[in-house]
Amino acid sequence: MVQINENFLKLKAGYLFPEIARRVSEFSKGNPDADIIRLGIGDVTEPLPLAIVNAMHEAVDEMASRESFHGYGPEQGYSFLRDCIAKYDYQDRGVSVAADEIFVSDGSKCDSGNILDIFGPGNRIAITDPVYPVYVDTNVMAGHTGPADDDGRYGGLVYLPVTEENGFIPQLPSEPVDLIYLCYPNNPTGTVATRETLQQWVDYAKEYGSIILFDAAYEAYIADDDIPHSIYEISGAREVAVEFRSFSKNAGFTGTRCAFTVVPRDVTIPVGDEHVSLRELWNRRQCTKFNGASFVVQKGAAAAYSEEGRGQIRDLVNFYMTNARLLREGLQELGITVYGGENAPYVWLKTPNGLNSWDFFDVLLSKGHLVGTPGSGFGAAGEGYFRLSAFNSRENVEAALERFKLAVAGP
Amino acid sequence: MVQINENFLKLKAGYLFPEIARRVSEFSKGNPDADIIRLGIGDVTEPLPLAIVNAMHEAVDEMASRESFHGYGPEQGYSFLRDCIAKYDYQDRGVSVAADEIFVSDGSKCDSGNILDIFGPGNRIAITDPVYPVYVDTNVMAGHTGPADDDGRYGGLVYLPVTEENGFIPQLPSEPVDLIYLCYPNNPTGTVATRETLQQWVDYAKEYGSIILFDAAYEAYIADDDIPHSIYEISGAREVAVEFRSFSKNAGFTGTRCAFTVVPRDVTIPVGDEHVSLRELWNRRQCTKFNGASFVVQKGAAAAYSEEGRGQIRDLVNFYMTNARLLREGLQELGITVYGGENAPYVWLKTPNGLNSWDFFDVLLSKGHLVGTPGSGFGAAGEGYFRLSAFNSRENVEAALERFKLAVAGP
Repeated sequence: MVQINENFLKLKAGYLFPEIARRVSEFSKGNPDADIIRLGIGDVTEPLPLAIVNAMHEAVDEMASRESFHGYGPEQGYSFLRDCIAKYDYQDRGVSVAADEIFVSDGSKCDSGNILDIFGPGNRIAITDPVYPVYVDTNVMAGHTGPADDDGRYGGLVYLPVTEENGFIPQLPSEPVDLIYLCYPNNPTGTVATRETLQQWVDYAKEYGSIILFDAAYEAYIADDDIPHSIYEISGAREVAVEFRSFSKNAGFTGTRCAFTVVPRDVTIPVGDEHVSLRELWNRRQCTKFNGASFVVQKGAAAAYSEEGRGQIRDLVNFYMTNARLLREGLQELGITVYGGENAPYVWLKTPNGLNSWDFFDVLLSKGHLVGTPGSGFGAAGEGYFRLSAFNSRENVEAALERFKLAVAGP
Repeated sequence: MVQINENFLKLKAGYLFPEIARRVSEFSKGNPDADIIRLGIGDVTEPLPLAIVNAMHEAVDEMASRESFHGYGPEQGYSFLRDCIAKYDYQDRGVSVAADEIFVSDGSKCDSGNILDIFGPGNRIAITDPVYPVYVDTNVMAGHTGPADDDGRYGGLVYLPVTEENGFIPQLPSEPVDLIYLCYPNNPTGTVATRETLQQWVDYAKEYGSIILFDAAYEAYIADDDIPHSIYEISGAREVAVEFRSFSKNAGFTGTRCAFTVVPRDVTIPVGDEHVSLRELWNRRQCTKFNGASFVVQKGAAAAYSEEGRGQIRDLVNFYMTNARLLREGLQELGITVYGGENAPYVWLKTPNGLNSWDFFDVLLSKGHLVGTPGSGFGAAGEGYFRLSAFNSRENVEAALERFKLAVAGP
């Protein structure tokens, strides 16, 4: 008799975004004329940059002729893309990452889940709270946790709260942990980590033999000169860190699908008398369970590094960051306490009047026809907070602020 | 201290295709003028059908404008594609599969590996021998096997030999198994399964509570009217089978990347007093660890079902099948015993003069400047066999046959 992976049964049924969709759908049924503005899911809204569009058209034409057709590509990604990434994202910034340490994929969500394939079952996992739910759920599915308690916290995970009280800086764990998920600029709080904070984590990982899984999907939104763009700007990180990057939020690839993961050669793990290269393990995993990202998509991603492409992406990021600034300033004018939105496309606000996150969700939806994301959906320590995404049209952002006034000021 | 997944260390270092690449590279160095013809890896060579090229151009243009831009798509795939698959691949052939039982992905290799996420660690796994190596390696990585023996067979796996002696029909296992991998038309042997053979497997699975993982990536190559295209043509299969399909080998998507997996609602697994829906588990896995296939690629895949697209794909499949027939007949004329090549793009030949698979590889390479795949690379029972792929230009196939004559006739 076949057995299922019973760890799946530990997953909480009410996943965040389906629950949001359910409430919005119910509201829409009762209010069919309501023009709802969605600032919930962090999904881009603006078209692909022209340089990328042109490159993808050229790539499609290459596939239309026998002479230039491409079949299976390298599982690790094409050199034309890996070389661009190594140069523009790392080497030109003085960071040592080689092209063959870069693994191109179809998404950071996939990579950050799949990476668990190469780690053993006995690892102790640390995550911040609130956190991007995929880190938690993939560990639950892999059997690295016990069941969830009433707050939704899973047994065996080490939760590191990030709240107003600690300035959104997670404390080093009081007990040794083996895998540490860090996401900067942070989803959902929109906060960033200084060089000093990251150095502490790298030092910790070196001391305890831990691995840092560093999610830098929002790197393009860093505006402050002194905030690191990559974990590899930190001394020693090449020995202890894996970095995830994506074209989703800079080049608008949420529906086009391309990302990459960096696994430096310097990460080696002792097994008996040997040292096993983490890069070799990931390479083997990808060669066995992945067949490379689409050629057409990789050509589009490479165009993001052309001079034209880089300019267009800068404009795109600036556009969303102006949205973030408008949201941030507009909410502050209403007396709402806000975090993030300066080096990240998310604004993390304290719910006014001490409302809990879901109650505030309902108020915003019913009175403002606005959809955001309840902070408690990202973890117990997110209760009393609320996430707004800057991914929208200017018109919608401006309209949303007007509606906020009404919703918050109301009776 | 972090722990790696030590099951990876059980994987045999000399993976098939890298070893082929190494030998070819060494030969090329010594013979820089040799014009090598590759009939090894099963990778398509002809351009994408025009209907698909046009659809992908249109999709890229949609991504270039705010009004028609697509961000995150459904993790399960767009309805425009799932509906086509349900209608043309199943319902129009009288097979009951609903659109919401179809999960679109970026590749069958990924799906056939990732599916293990939803199964537990205690399952007993049956594979044919020879076999597509991904089934084996992903089970090794997941910890479902012991180490390999000298023949490369992993402890704990149930190997079902398919050779000339049993007419390439695997016997039902003598001990109960829980997960059964079947691939028809078969890679590497190019043989097919009759309705009666498949019915035996479905009946077995129903009796023992097993699940059949049915890989139908080469379905488009079935020419005989009485050979089933889908496991769901078999009575009872909707309760016990998962089916993998791909656009790689019919529409030429090896570099474009699109596939799908069917998990019927009728597959439920008892856990305690409950029955867990396998479809729900896979849906949860995909929603958590996958973000949908590229919009542009899905639009291309949907065009494969247009009237124009279906005609162009038929032509493409016929082109490769003519190659297969030429290889088959040409080798037979040389007195070589061949299997496959009638309902599959692979010809599986018995090595002449009792040579072992790798020795024959070396003879073909050195005397004919031809590359094929040694049968033993697919499993111990593949020793003494050799795979040729029909994915090539007509010119190369004809030249390859001439060279075969010289290589086989030589001293």
